[in-house]
Amino acid sequence: MSPENIRIQLPDGSVREVPKGTTPLDVANGISPRLAAAVVVAKIRPLTTATTESTATETGSEDAMYAAHESGERLVDLSAPLNEDVALWLLKEDAPEALKVVRHSAAHVMATAVLELFPETKLGHGPATDAGFFYDFYREKPFTPEDLEKIEQRMAEVVTRDEKFVREYEPREQALREFKANGDFMKQHFVEKFTKDGEQVSLYKNGSFVDFCRGPHVPSTGRVKAFKVTNLAGAYWLGDEKNPQLQRVYGTAFYNKKDLEAHFKHLEEIKARDHRVLGKQLDLYSIQEVAGSGLIFWHPKGGIIRKTMEDWMREECLRRGYNLVFTPHIMKRELWKISGHDGVYSKDMFPPMELDDAEYRVKPMNCPGHILIYKSTPKSYRDLPARYAELGNVYRFERSGTMHGLLRVRGFTQDDAHIFCTPDQVKGEIEACLDFAESVLKTFGFSEYRVELSTRDPNKPGEFFGTADDWAHAEGALQEVLVGRGLSFETFPGEAAFYGPKIDVKLVDVLGRLWQLSTVQFDFNLPRRFELEYVGEDGERHQPVMVHRALFGSVERFFGVLIEHYAGAFPLWLSPVQIGLVPISEKHHAYAEQVKQKLEAAGLRVELDLRNEKMNAKIRDFTLQKIPFVLVMGDKEAASEAVSVRTRGVGDQGSVSLAEFITRTQGLLESKSPTL
Amino acid sequence: MSPENIRIQLPDGSVREVPKGTTPLDVANGISPRLAAAVVVAKIRPLTTATTESTATETGSEDAMYAAHESGERLVDLSAPLNEDVALWLLKEDAPEALKVVRHSAAHVMATAVLELFPETKLGHGPATDAGFFYDFYREKPFTPEDLEKIEQRMAEVVTRDEKFVREYEPREQALREFKANGDFMKQHFVEKFTKDGEQVSLYKNGSFVDFCRGPHVPSTGRVKAFKVTNLAGAYWLGDEKNPQLQRVYGTAFYNKKDLEAHFKHLEEIKARDHRVLGKQLDLYSIQEVAGSGLIFWHPKGGIIRKTMEDWMREECLRRGYNLVFTPHIMKRELWKISGHDGVYSKDMFPPMELDDAEYRVKPMNCPGHILIYKSTPKSYRDLPARYAELGNVYRFERSGTMHGLLRVRGFTQDDAHIFCTPDQVKGEIEACLDFAESVLKTFGFSEYRVELSTRDPNKPGEFFGTADDWAHAEGALQEVLVGRGLSFETFPGEAAFYGPKIDVKLVDVLGRLWQLSTVQFDFNLPRRFELEYVGEDGERHQPVMVHRALFGSVERFFGVLIEHYAGAFPLWLSPVQIGLVPISEKHHAYAEQVKQKLEAAGLRVELDLRNEKMNAKIRDFTLQKIPFVLVMGDKEAASEAVSVRTRGVGDQGSVSLAEFITRTQGLLESKSPTL
Repeated sequence: MSPENIRIQLPDGSVREVPKGTTPLDVANGISPRLAAAVVVAKIRPLTTATTESTATETGSEDAMYAAHESGERLVDLSAPLNEDVALWLLKEDAPEALKVVRHSAAHVMATAVLELFPETKLGHGPATDAGFFYDFYREKPFTPEDLEKIEQRMAEVVTRDEKFVREYEPREQALREFKANGDFMKQHFVEKFTKDGEQVSLYKNGSFVDFCRGPHVPSTGRVKAFKVTNLAGAYWLGDEKNPQLQRVYGTAFYNKKDLEAHFKHLEEIKARDHRVLGKQLDLYSIQEVAGSGLIFWHPKGGIIRKTMEDWMREECLRRGYNLVFTPHIMKRELWKISGHDGVYSKDMFPPMELDDAEYRVKPMNCPGHILIYKSTPKSYRDLPARYAELGNVYRFERSGTMHGLLRVRGFTQDDAHIFCTPDQVKGEIEACLDFAESVLKTFGFSEYRVELSTRDPNKPGEFFGTADDWAHAEGALQEVLVGRGLSFETFPGEAAFYGPKIDVKLVDVLGRLWQLSTVQFDFNLPRRFELEYVGEDGERHQPVMVHRALFGSVERFFGVLIEHYAGAFPLWLSPVQIGLVPISEKHHAYAEQVKQKLEAAGLRVELDLRNEKMNAKIRDFTLQKIPFVLVMGDKEAASEAVSVRTRGVGDQGSVSLAEFITRTQGLLESKSPTL
Repeated sequence: MSPENIRIQLPDGSVREVPKGTTPLDVANGISPRLAAAVVVAKIRPLTTATTESTATETGSEDAMYAAHESGERLVDLSAPLNEDVALWLLKEDAPEALKVVRHSAAHVMATAVLELFPETKLGHGPATDAGFFYDFYREKPFTPEDLEKIEQRMAEVVTRDEKFVREYEPREQALREFKANGDFMKQHFVEKFTKDGEQVSLYKNGSFVDFCRGPHVPSTGRVKAFKVTNLAGAYWLGDEKNPQLQRVYGTAFYNKKDLEAHFKHLEEIKARDHRVLGKQLDLYSIQEVAGSGLIFWHPKGGIIRKTMEDWMREECLRRGYNLVFTPHIMKRELWKISGHDGVYSKDMFPPMELDDAEYRVKPMNCPGHILIYKSTPKSYRDLPARYAELGNVYRFERSGTMHGLLRVRGFTQDDAHIFCTPDQVKGEIEACLDFAESVLKTFGFSEYRVELSTRDPNKPGEFFGTADDWAHAEGALQEVLVGRGLSFETFPGEAAFYGPKIDVKLVDVLGRLWQLSTVQFDFNLPRRFELEYVGEDGERHQPVMVHRALFGSVERFFGVLIEHYAGAFPLWLSPVQIGLVPISEKHHAYAEQVKQKLEAAGLRVELDLRNEKMNAKIRDFTLQKIPFVLVMGDKEAASEAVSVRTRGVGDQGSVSLAEFITRTQGLLESKSPTL
């Protein structure tokens, strides 16, 4: 090979020999002009370096952007000359990294527009984020909403001008001098921070706009085809409130208008389903500042849903051979020392309370309590498996400011169970746990889920507690059961807790979001710490296998997910009020009362609106409360013992006899239909 | 009236004029010799002093014995000369005070016997107690069980001798000299402590026995007719472990052998029903020293009973128009300051925990939580009554050493509800609470109960919070409802909490013991502290009436009472295992499994004994577990799909078809029969 040539390895394994200085765009053109038009950005990995994965997992911070350059793989401009042997990926729109490059370029387009409109503005940084991009600006006068509109319009002009993004280098000293002369204190800071004396500094230019930036970018501003300026927030320069306040302008960008619109529609859907908003609107629960952060008050309408969830869970536990136990919320610190929680986990627990006989701590977990019950009588193999289940209220110290509605709280209720069994019983128990988990998902209306298996890192056995045999047996059992049930799953080696492997089940909600739900977790640690044992068929003492499992996970969190999944329009069996009754006028009140009694006697939850309001206002109010059925009653209905039915999401369905309505509704209730 | 005469006023109001020095026995003889023979002791009150009640509420301590002398009323010997005008009661065996006098005399009889048998013994004190009496002795060598038998035998001799109890007085200095000469360091101490210089010291003699004592006593040792020495315990002189150790010998005494035997039978019954013993024997619950005192672990068999209790209570709440709410176990200290608990009640709470944003405290009560829910939305008269119910776990700091099984604990579950209503609704709500309380009693098998009404002290209005109108209205409502329901009740003026009047319901268990159960309690304080309001029909803001009510009281405590009431033989609907299955031999295992499945499908809790044991051993084990039904299955049963039924407390009832057994049992279950 000529020393002036380099080798380019393509993803299909083929290798091309090209002259040094060839760009990725040249390579694309060499393959097909259509490809060259479709490609957004390139990714390379020097063929001489190790094939380690990129360690850059975050974007949105300047540090992370640069960290990417340190790893083997990195993104480069399509116009970047290649000067060494590389593996090359030509990334099109379907590559996840590509959209971030578009958004980064959109941030430059935004900064271009801002400087054109407000030339006195000084630039901070402007990265892509998971949902779009932002740019920090310093300017005496805050931007108004009208300013943002103007910026968006000017960005459209910059895009229309289709200015090329050109990368140039100049000596660090020169760049610093220029930024300083221009009063660009932030750019000056970044250059000082991210480059060294004598280095060449990377600048990106489009038209007359220049930015200190290491890229990469799309070829030209014309490639930023669909964007929107979304909002404005304040931020102190370098996060220090003694520094000047910056204006962070947020935007987002997509490949096309359709994706952009879908994005905003999705955001609206998420907002409309926000459990914090719905929780208030439907009067389901509250968090009371005067009582503390992350502590949930279940109001009557949330309370009845919780009772329904709990009742279902307890009955199902009993049906499946679990025992129900109840353990205290506060236990001696001594116990938490034995369990090991009052060690590494201590900082996540509420602080100790000193009583007259000992220090006590609020429980962050139910395991030690269940273990004490296990230990309270001698156990033989005949007593196993012992399955102890509890709706246990645990408290963990989340830092203030980190709480989020029902999803991240300080106090929550685990549907926690611990299974103590013989090694022979492990597979059957795991199988039963997964079956139970699937039943939870199905019952509560989730049809899609992902399964993850976390195993130990086979290269670092020292970081994991328990014998190699224990691990092999447990991991084998988990895997066999997953395979046996025909479940597709991902394995994450090294992601297991130090005390045992686990299976996580994540549900997929109606918006496609993933939520961690059930966990089935082996524990080799606590049985040893608490010296658990049972007498086997051989008459000898053995240590039982211990499995932790939670299916809802946290009742509070699961409730939050349910609210968002159903957008508050709960299926009949979970609805706090199942039927709203609307008498057309006062003379139908007596009949409405009769209907109410009959419905309640049939086990249905009913609300009767006797206010002096118009029928339509009453229907509207029930509809806003997302009540499954609204029954309207006038002369005709009263005369024939009928009701006029309005079904949520369907509308007016006309009159049926009350008896028939009751039969139908009870059927729906019985079936726990997830749709209504 | 002659100055040598005094006036004696008898309980019927009649007054007799008698010479000074007349004794109560003289008066009795003057009425009838039969009365004179029956009377045990006398009680007098000087006619010149105020008619205040005795302040001595305790016996069993030397101090309390003497305190009685300070009050207006006091007990005196039948032989005591009366020298002033007095009201006189001649107490016979039916008077509660009389038995304590007999027991005090029995203590002297015991001391007499001990000194005769072991003359080197030194005497401490020997009071009557609620259950009998004791005497403290100092002696190098501990008494053996044989010694106690000898003491009891010698006591019988002392009784047979029928020695008169004679009260004598001698100068304090002389008494001290004599006790000192005899080495009676304890008697010397008591004389020094309880008498003053120059005083005459009261001594009681019988035969050659002398004791420093202020009496009174029965006329002679022959009146101690039925007694028993029960046990021996160690006690340090003056409770100080640096002092010599005393031997406290306990005994009890009654008027006759029948009462004595009944007492020991009752004690045995109480012991056999002790919920701590049965809790362990039936594996219902435990208290774990390593986790802390007064904290209850509900084991599987207790857990299913608790679930049954909770389910019943929650359904009944819903049926009765309550809303179920759930509130956190930990709340900011700030909230407890607003409620006032973090003030006078603070020492009964677990200590504060400091987090990053505030101090937090574990809840000792649920009221503030429910109040925050009430306040979370504006309320109108249409929203009232609002009835919030919760099975709330509360924690209170009982001093270590004061806990007792399930009855006195640090953590417990209140079936707590708070009713917020308009003044017009108060009566209806109280009525409903009492109806609910009666339903709890009846459902759980208690037919007898007592009702107590605690009102404020009308003479001390300043000690009670709220207006006179508030109190009059509330007390009136409580009383009217009690009268209206035809309930007999006792009123305790001045016994109300400072914040409102209340009704207490106390159940009577199978042994006749009283247990505090339900409380319905007004609260004028918290609505004001939290500025609760509702908009009335008049459009104005008003303060709602707040009523606390708990029916089980504490789920833990109620469970303890249930265990003792039923002696662990729970009615069918509460039994953890309802049916025990005994296949006669291995070849009947398959049929037994079928029976198990059918019973479980019918909603019954079943245990199948497949051990390699004899049929009778299996039946015995199930019987020890107090399981309602034991079904035995052999060839005959398997062939005809039948079961041979043994019913708890009834015995073998022969074969019935399985179908019939299921129908019958489900009927029993449905009816919640309290007997089986």
